[in-house]
Amino acid sequence: MAAPTSTVRHLKTANFRQWIDGLDAFLFDCDGVLWRGSAAIDGAKEAIALLRSLGKKVVFVTNNSTKSRDTYVNKLAGQGIPATVNDIVTSASACAAYLRKHDVQGKVYVVGEAGLAAEVTAQGFENFGLEHNGKTEVPTPFTVDPAVGAVVIGLDRAISYYKLSYAAVAILNNPGCKFFATNTDPTFPVDGAVLPGGGTCVAALATAVGREPDAVIGKPSQALLQTILSTHNLDPARTCMVGDRLNTDIEFGRLGGLKTLLVLTGVTAPQDLDHIANEAQRPDFFVESIDVVNQLAK
Amino acid sequence: MAAPTSTVRHLKTANFRQWIDGLDAFLFDCDGVLWRGSAAIDGAKEAIALLRSLGKKVVFVTNNSTKSRDTYVNKLAGQGIPATVNDIVTSASACAAYLRKHDVQGKVYVVGEAGLAAEVTAQGFENFGLEHNGKTEVPTPFTVDPAVGAVVIGLDRAISYYKLSYAAVAILNNPGCKFFATNTDPTFPVDGAVLPGGGTCVAALATAVGREPDAVIGKPSQALLQTILSTHNLDPARTCMVGDRLNTDIEFGRLGGLKTLLVLTGVTAPQDLDHIANEAQRPDFFVESIDVVNQLAK
Repeated sequence: MAAPTSTVRHLKTANFRQWIDGLDAFLFDCDGVLWRGSAAIDGAKEAIALLRSLGKKVVFVTNNSTKSRDTYVNKLAGQGIPATVNDIVTSASACAAYLRKHDVQGKVYVVGEAGLAAEVTAQGFENFGLEHNGKTEVPTPFTVDPAVGAVVIGLDRAISYYKLSYAAVAILNNPGCKFFATNTDPTFPVDGAVLPGGGTCVAALATAVGREPDAVIGKPSQALLQTILSTHNLDPARTCMVGDRLNTDIEFGRLGGLKTLLVLTGVTAPQDLDHIANEAQRPDFFVESIDVVNQLAK
Repeated sequence: MAAPTSTVRHLKTANFRQWIDGLDAFLFDCDGVLWRGSAAIDGAKEAIALLRSLGKKVVFVTNNSTKSRDTYVNKLAGQGIPATVNDIVTSASACAAYLRKHDVQGKVYVVGEAGLAAEVTAQGFENFGLEHNGKTEVPTPFTVDPAVGAVVIGLDRAISYYKLSYAAVAILNNPGCKFFATNTDPTFPVDGAVLPGGGTCVAALATAVGREPDAVIGKPSQALLQTILSTHNLDPARTCMVGDRLNTDIEFGRLGGLKTLLVLTGVTAPQDLDHIANEAQRPDFFVESIDVVNQLAK
């Protein structure tokens, strides 16, 4: 077995000052970095406050599609982290903006939660899908609204066979109907476990229609990263992506030329660092938790 | 573009007699061959009666995991096709037999419908899962019964985030917990449409746990085919697999050295025959519907 080509460096006192002085901005993943489910991660609010006090720009970039940005403002505030809607990018808000930018026509069928529907509505699209929650009867023949021009799918904890069927039949039978996924995270961290993520819903639908989505909007999409960099006028070489997942957060940053910091409070375990097969998923540094940044800055 | 290496022959008057004289037995897929949903396909019962009158053995082999074999006996009878339990193999009955043969220990968590649970019970396994239908609250921390030693998953039209989570956490957290799929059909034909098949549920769970099933039991599994051939003492060279799907039915037969007949009353369209990429999925013959066999025999 070949030795790893490099190890992941531990961020510590000896390298902290050079690291932080080389950075102007931080993109923060949220689930698994700042909190797990409803439980705050120790030191998260202090770390954000510290970085801001040092003049660093902080943007929150989450693949969580279940909450609107308004809801995220409240969630962050509840964790003691002030933020405005403009500081937040979710895969739902980015997906809705993508629909608008690419001039999608017709109605949008949403297989997702209230936050995704809210963002799609905010971009002016007539949409539906949440109304189908709890429907159990799948009629045959199964007909769908021929005006559906796009299906968007993300994590849907009310996923049902009816909704999956509706989305599949729309994509297969409505000429030109688009198929967009907010993200393909296989899991997400909650307090005490990892649970199925948006990628499980996407995989089910992709299997039913026999093709991958026309676009996956969330991390590690580089189109999303470029939009964030230009919106906030950030220099990629002086921006650090902080996240808990190698194949979304770290790859997102690495492919875009950002610095990267992995935290071990989410879905990545310490032993995962011993066998990173894809070099684009190797972080520059890791810390056990974001609270380490507070300790190192003392 | 290269020309196809061979075309699929149309079964017709000129080749019918030689074809049928070369066969002693037929394995029949059901959905898309004998019926679509609750609607019988014209000529199905007459074709089965014809083959039996010519001394041919008929075995029904379906990847449908939602019905028990007892239910299939009734369904076939309702379509005018007499059959006994021993004439029928479903991916559910084969999956349950597989659990017994491989000496699976502990309880079985079933993500599937009543027929799958009934077959697992008939093999003597304590199992549960149907009781979770309709559960919407996913608690955190999410704990599962540590006695679950296997998860079996097939088409589940009551699929929910709760059940997907339960199955994923069992596979990820219970040491040695096995993961078996009845089948991976992406779709299945019903009257007027194709709807998501068992493969969509399997894809969702495989994504959540980050690995493929330990075994997929149904067609095109050659372990399943060998069990059927030995149980019924069939000569593969004189047995014909009749089905509507290239990547299950036809591949199942071709890989085992059987003759194959494709019908166009299910999920395969005539134009699909023009670009068969995988030679193992190329049928020997096709007919528009099973009723053609009745016409040719006149």
